[in-house]
Amino acid sequence: MKIAIAQLNPTIGDIENNAKKIKQQAILANKEGAKLLLTPELSICGYPPRDLLLNHSFIHTIEKKLQQLALEIPPEICVLIGTITFNSLAQKEGKKPLYNSVVLINNGKIQKTYHKRLLPTYDVFEEDRYFSAGNKVNYFTLNDVKIGVTICEDLWNDEQFWGKKSYGINPIQELVNENIDLIINLSASPYIVGKQKVREAMLKHLVTKYKKPIIYVNQVGGNDDLIFDGFSCAINNKEEIITRCQPYQEDLAYLNFETNNHDLTSNYIHNLITSEEEEIYQALVLGVKDYAQKCGFSQAILGLSGGIDSALVATIAVSALGKDNVFAVLMPSPYSSQHSIIDAEKLVNNLGIKSEKIAIQEAMNSFDLLLNPLFKNTDFGIAEENLQSRIRGTLLMAIANKFGHLLLSTGNKSEMAVGYCTLYGDMNGGLAVIGDVPKTKVFNICKWINRKEEIIPNNIIIKPPSAELKPNQKDEDSLPPYHILDDILERYITQHESINDIEKVGHNLETIKKVIKLVNRAEFKRKQAPPVLKITDRAFGTGWKMPIAYRLNIENNLYSNPI
Amino acid sequence: MKIAIAQLNPTIGDIENNAKKIKQQAILANKEGAKLLLTPELSICGYPPRDLLLNHSFIHTIEKKLQQLALEIPPEICVLIGTITFNSLAQKEGKKPLYNSVVLINNGKIQKTYHKRLLPTYDVFEEDRYFSAGNKVNYFTLNDVKIGVTICEDLWNDEQFWGKKSYGINPIQELVNENIDLIINLSASPYIVGKQKVREAMLKHLVTKYKKPIIYVNQVGGNDDLIFDGFSCAINNKEEIITRCQPYQEDLAYLNFETNNHDLTSNYIHNLITSEEEEIYQALVLGVKDYAQKCGFSQAILGLSGGIDSALVATIAVSALGKDNVFAVLMPSPYSSQHSIIDAEKLVNNLGIKSEKIAIQEAMNSFDLLLNPLFKNTDFGIAEENLQSRIRGTLLMAIANKFGHLLLSTGNKSEMAVGYCTLYGDMNGGLAVIGDVPKTKVFNICKWINRKEEIIPNNIIIKPPSAELKPNQKDEDSLPPYHILDDILERYITQHESINDIEKVGHNLETIKKVIKLVNRAEFKRKQAPPVLKITDRAFGTGWKMPIAYRLNIENNLYSNPI
Repeated sequence: MKIAIAQLNPTIGDIENNAKKIKQQAILANKEGAKLLLTPELSICGYPPRDLLLNHSFIHTIEKKLQQLALEIPPEICVLIGTITFNSLAQKEGKKPLYNSVVLINNGKIQKTYHKRLLPTYDVFEEDRYFSAGNKVNYFTLNDVKIGVTICEDLWNDEQFWGKKSYGINPIQELVNENIDLIINLSASPYIVGKQKVREAMLKHLVTKYKKPIIYVNQVGGNDDLIFDGFSCAINNKEEIITRCQPYQEDLAYLNFETNNHDLTSNYIHNLITSEEEEIYQALVLGVKDYAQKCGFSQAILGLSGGIDSALVATIAVSALGKDNVFAVLMPSPYSSQHSIIDAEKLVNNLGIKSEKIAIQEAMNSFDLLLNPLFKNTDFGIAEENLQSRIRGTLLMAIANKFGHLLLSTGNKSEMAVGYCTLYGDMNGGLAVIGDVPKTKVFNICKWINRKEEIIPNNIIIKPPSAELKPNQKDEDSLPPYHILDDILERYITQHESINDIEKVGHNLETIKKVIKLVNRAEFKRKQAPPVLKITDRAFGTGWKMPIAYRLNIENNLYSNPI
Repeated sequence: MKIAIAQLNPTIGDIENNAKKIKQQAILANKEGAKLLLTPELSICGYPPRDLLLNHSFIHTIEKKLQQLALEIPPEICVLIGTITFNSLAQKEGKKPLYNSVVLINNGKIQKTYHKRLLPTYDVFEEDRYFSAGNKVNYFTLNDVKIGVTICEDLWNDEQFWGKKSYGINPIQELVNENIDLIINLSASPYIVGKQKVREAMLKHLVTKYKKPIIYVNQVGGNDDLIFDGFSCAINNKEEIITRCQPYQEDLAYLNFETNNHDLTSNYIHNLITSEEEEIYQALVLGVKDYAQKCGFSQAILGLSGGIDSALVATIAVSALGKDNVFAVLMPSPYSSQHSIIDAEKLVNNLGIKSEKIAIQEAMNSFDLLLNPLFKNTDFGIAEENLQSRIRGTLLMAIANKFGHLLLSTGNKSEMAVGYCTLYGDMNGGLAVIGDVPKTKVFNICKWINRKEEIIPNNIIIKPPSAELKPNQKDEDSLPPYHILDDILERYITQHESINDIEKVGHNLETIKKVIKLVNRAEFKRKQAPPVLKITDRAFGTGWKMPIAYRLNIENNLYSNPI
């Protein structure tokens, strides 16, 4: 029996076009003789639809569209579509009004409906906000093959693999108890560094344990801060990867379920990406491309300082949108070094992008003049430094507004963490492209970009980082060296380590406290940051939910170890 | 038996000082002969602590502090403290690692621990993200009085009162089944307009139904976007309110539980606030006061345009921080009308605040000059309008940075909804004071402010709203009249009505579609807005979770009614 995987890139809410894509794939797969087409979780409305789900007419519209789609899809093929359904017993039983579901369309009708059983509510996931958990074991039989249907998280609760249970039930075990032949999983699983390796290790573990082949279908595409990397795959009973779709783009793959030995065959296998730097780079390219396209932008603008962060973002933007669609603005001040301008111009040249140079001195002067009655007799300080950044941010937004460009924000994760960035200045933009990339990784990715030829001028990579907002300023005047800062940040922010734990690995106690204080105090800036493309377990995006007006007793015993 | 209610205003995370407050109240209540002191939900760490909970050493620190507190509280009095505890079975049972709990401290020790049973996960609440639901019926006996302990949401699932169940169990019914004498509820229930009336109606319904007196203890104070209004209260078996604490400030109230008739007595009753305008005004004052204080600001700054929004925010700021701590900046451009400057100056005078006038023409000129190479041969448009707003925003931030002031953002809900505001311009600020107040309510509140004397110059209230970013501009050139706009917004945003439903009440279909499109397109601005003080069911704050890069098929059949 031939089975097709449609690795789709839906646009959130765009039911019309998402349905069209599903229909096209169904027609194609049917022509190729497939009996079953699999699409990702919530393929009809895109994942995550968030509070669009609170408007019930949105759900009614989906229902209507699905009925129409059932009539348009060739009657011979079965298609599994991820969708939303109402829980009619919600008010009676005290449950949430919706289900995260999959419908089986065949022969002009919705034949079956299955509900997601495990609802992730952590990090960027908020499914308990909207959904009831399904409580039925989900499977159907097609051509005598008994197929177990799972939706994303349903697969992610294996106690042995994770060393703990995250939910009280294990839908896979329940399916195996029903003696199914094949497990399919329809997912919308967002990218983080190394995620596909984890997925495949987990899938192999499940095949080893349950002796059932698995087909894993993932969404692809960028939706705000989340990047879905695709990499849909399948594993046969011999624990071999027999299908791996392309990463970072739509794909259509075919497999066969052999009824003689109850196993899958196929040899559509794209390679994993072996370099972490390349993996991140490609993910960010997709994130920029889709954010721009889904928001209706074809061109992007950014400020080029001559530093490494904006150099990386410019390079990503060119990969995402093409060199003719990226506009760089150099905005030197009297504090900008000569090498910064030269480096930025060299980068512009290497990338072949359009650029403009606007010296900001005159705007600085006019603000100084306006503020002089209030500022006279005060020293040059943060206010004046920020002013330069805000003049640049204002220029960029003016150009973006004038020509309908998307402004890309260029700050990295390390500076967003400690607040070494200016709100309404360099933080300006529709998307924070590398806001989840620590500075140390920014260097590595730039070196990877230059692996064959110098695209990012080498001087940008080797010179000491500086904001150039006052004479001879260096980042390390205000911050610990980045390799130390990034390690403390990783431990504090991502690993949730205590001060004592961080100290134990050799960091200086005062440095740790200083960093933690900076992180805590910068929350008001992160609150107003653009969406940050997520590449780690703990990004400053929808999964980061911190209070702003709070106080931690760091000097006393806070973040100490257990009693 | 004497019982005390400590209506506390904790600072999120400030375990040290929150514990100190609890201790002080316990000493005081003990001196007054109280046997039991009640504090709000999570009184030790403040509500909501959000992702601080992911750092387990934060929980360990709370545990340590509670043990210390147990030794410091007079041994004779029982104190119920809202806190976090670990769920030791979480990994084994597939549950969340923490409980939202209450501990009973007495005689130097934590004697009992109770866990919240109903975990709200909707709007601003995200308790499923962190907590396991308790599954025990929570009560204890003190002086032969059997006291049922509930935590906030535990009380909010009465099927008759709400016309539906939100959870599968009813903790109140389970307590009544255990024949308790008294129900206590420790809450952190955020303010929205008219909330206290709903609370008291619900409490009365429960007393009528179960014939048990109830003591309801609420947190008070502003925590970021959430305002907790206090109004802790108690209802006796005769369904009478016998205690009502002060709104919007800390309070300590005493009641007696009479063992002869098993009922509560007391006569500590503050009035409800009868005027909706006053209620909102006082709530916003508290929100500003606490946000400033908990973030470490004593002074606020804002731009005064001569319009009604900034006039209202200035008045609120004066009530919150005192007139000597509010600094107004008038920033006229060539498009500012003479009456705007006069009106703003009159307001400054009426409020008795400091002000400075900075004409922005020169800064506009310098930007025009810098942008001229790119902008020549283009028409004056949105880019130029936004530029004025961003120059003002930059000036305000420079002054705020220089003198350590908190910048207050002055936009109202209607304009935030449709994006009639400039990102990095007038949206700048640490707090969006009236970002949840629709324009029509802004007018009403200003009229209420002027009920005795003209504080806000009448001309500000009666003139047609204008952004004054180009000659003779009026809001109504771009937007429907505010009474129409606000009604459509309320129906679409808060009531989640479909286009058809909104049309049925008499609105023009094209106007509805235009408004909805504007709302959808402005999401990128709201994403980067400051925290918005919440006063309605559906504010643009932590409870507003919308995608940005999405597309709705409004022109087709989206938001249509059921099939």
